[in-house]
Amino acid sequence: MTNSSEISFRQFQQLIRDMYLEKDMARGVDGTFMWLMEEIGELASCLRNGTHEERLGEFADVIAWLTTIANVAGVDLTEAVMKKYGSGCPGCSQFICTCDNAEKP
Amino acid sequence: MTNSSEISFRQFQQLIRDMYLEKDMARGVDGTFMWLMEEIGELASCLRNGTHEERLGEFADVIAWLTTIANVAGVDLTEAVMKKYGSGCPGCSQFICTCDNAEKP
Repeated sequence: MTNSSEISFRQFQQLIRDMYLEKDMARGVDGTFMWLMEEIGELASCLRNGTHEERLGEFADVIAWLTTIANVAGVDLTEAVMKKYGSGCPGCSQFICTCDNAEKP
Repeated sequence: MTNSSEISFRQFQQLIRDMYLEKDMARGVDGTFMWLMEEIGELASCLRNGTHEERLGEFADVIAWLTTIANVAGVDLTEAVMKKYGSGCPGCSQFICTCDNAEKP
């Protein structure tokens, strides 16, 4: 469906929408959020003890569940990331962050 | 730095790498994971009570912190999502999932 070396947020969000939207809508945001949390836990565990291959899988799962929640909530991830990070760091507006280390980013 | 209507995982991961890698490396995976968790909490809150604009911001922040962790852990998000979802649902291998509703996806 796409060049395997490149995939956009728009393409991925559509892929997940096509694959899961019907189930996602039935489950709703709350139920879907529980799955995201489970995957976040698996990612944490994997970052401590997992192999590189396992980490690839867990990152993919977290992104997929996050995308599914965005679909249910009607949020366009491309718009989200471009608006917040497309013009530089939201803290200092630089493309290489110069915020104080104690600050959030 | 990119067409504002389209951004790839590769472009976004590089953007976040350029913007934050030095700080991210100093903080390490554990410290960075704490920030991700804070953003996950803000996303949950926002999904209940936030405006559409606030949700855009929180989704972007969660993706940014997740990407930062991937950078520190040496995980390529493009490879991750393509390997797991690029050939269809990991459960049933279909592009429109046919897994039983009780199953994970």
